[in-house]
Amino acid sequence: MSLSMHAMSVPIFTRTLGNLAAILDKAAAHAQAKKIDPAVLLNARLYPDMFALTRQVQLASDHAKGAAARLAGQEPPKFEDVETTVEQLQARIARTIEFLRGIDAKAFDGADTREISLKFRDTVHKHSGLVYLCHIALPNFFFHATTAYDILRHNGVELGKRDFIGSN
Amino acid sequence: MSLSMHAMSVPIFTRTLGNLAAILDKAAAHAQAKKIDPAVLLNARLYPDMFALTRQVQLASDHAKGAAARLAGQEPPKFEDVETTVEQLQARIARTIEFLRGIDAKAFDGADTREISLKFRDTVHKHSGLVYLCHIALPNFFFHATTAYDILRHNGVELGKRDFIGSN
Repeated sequence: MSLSMHAMSVPIFTRTLGNLAAILDKAAAHAQAKKIDPAVLLNARLYPDMFALTRQVQLASDHAKGAAARLAGQEPPKFEDVETTVEQLQARIARTIEFLRGIDAKAFDGADTREISLKFRDTVHKHSGLVYLCHIALPNFFFHATTAYDILRHNGVELGKRDFIGSN
Repeated sequence: MSLSMHAMSVPIFTRTLGNLAAILDKAAAHAQAKKIDPAVLLNARLYPDMFALTRQVQLASDHAKGAAARLAGQEPPKFEDVETTVEQLQARIARTIEFLRGIDAKAFDGADTREISLKFRDTVHKHSGLVYLCHIALPNFFFHATTAYDILRHNGVELGKRDFIGSN
């Protein structure tokens, strides 16, 4: 594998999303063992005005599929944010990974200089694909994936950084 | 700026470290306004067996300088982990950014296929530079930077994701 915009995006997203799915498995097992309603974990947050676990996972999914689609010159697919169980979040992660793996790596050729337009309210922000990947997509993706992990750790689920990083 | 191993590492690290320094400024201002000893925030953690804020910042620094040095074919500089104040953590971040900016971008040429050896206890793990950057360096860096942010948010410091991502 050599350096490319595809190599710097899709495998990073799929790997961390896969690790996040395994982390959710551990959360579900923890809830069962401790007789905790899994919804308590899914609705947990680190501060009242921060997003709960479910939303953190949805946003990690959104940033991954949004980034890969935009860099490949496609419209990001819209997933409804309707998950209320661990199984549904797992399905969303699986669907995200499937989408990511389905994009032809060749579609990322030239994506570093491709113009990416992002709309926030009434303003359109334009970036090169490289700036978008480095300073928006990757930081946002890892921000939400890590915060999902942090919420579960804070709630006593036995996880270690290896669960987040994966074994190398 | 075009795609390169330098572009995919150094600017990502320096930007997020700069944002982390600004986040620590807000934490110090919050502590002063609320008459909280800043050491309370520096020693805060999300769970008893997780690292406290100070260590999260040190580790973000370590992963950034370690990754950039290794990819550039250099020995990572050793910084002593002795910080006990916000000012000292700021100085560490500044020193890390200075080191990152001081590496010649040309030293990263071919880093995607360069063999990177990592020693954990008695085992040496070998990876290509690309795998190391994608699956070890970036996830670890963002893991610790995000957890630093999460610790401060959890302790009531008024921050938003924009503080972490920066304005685009």
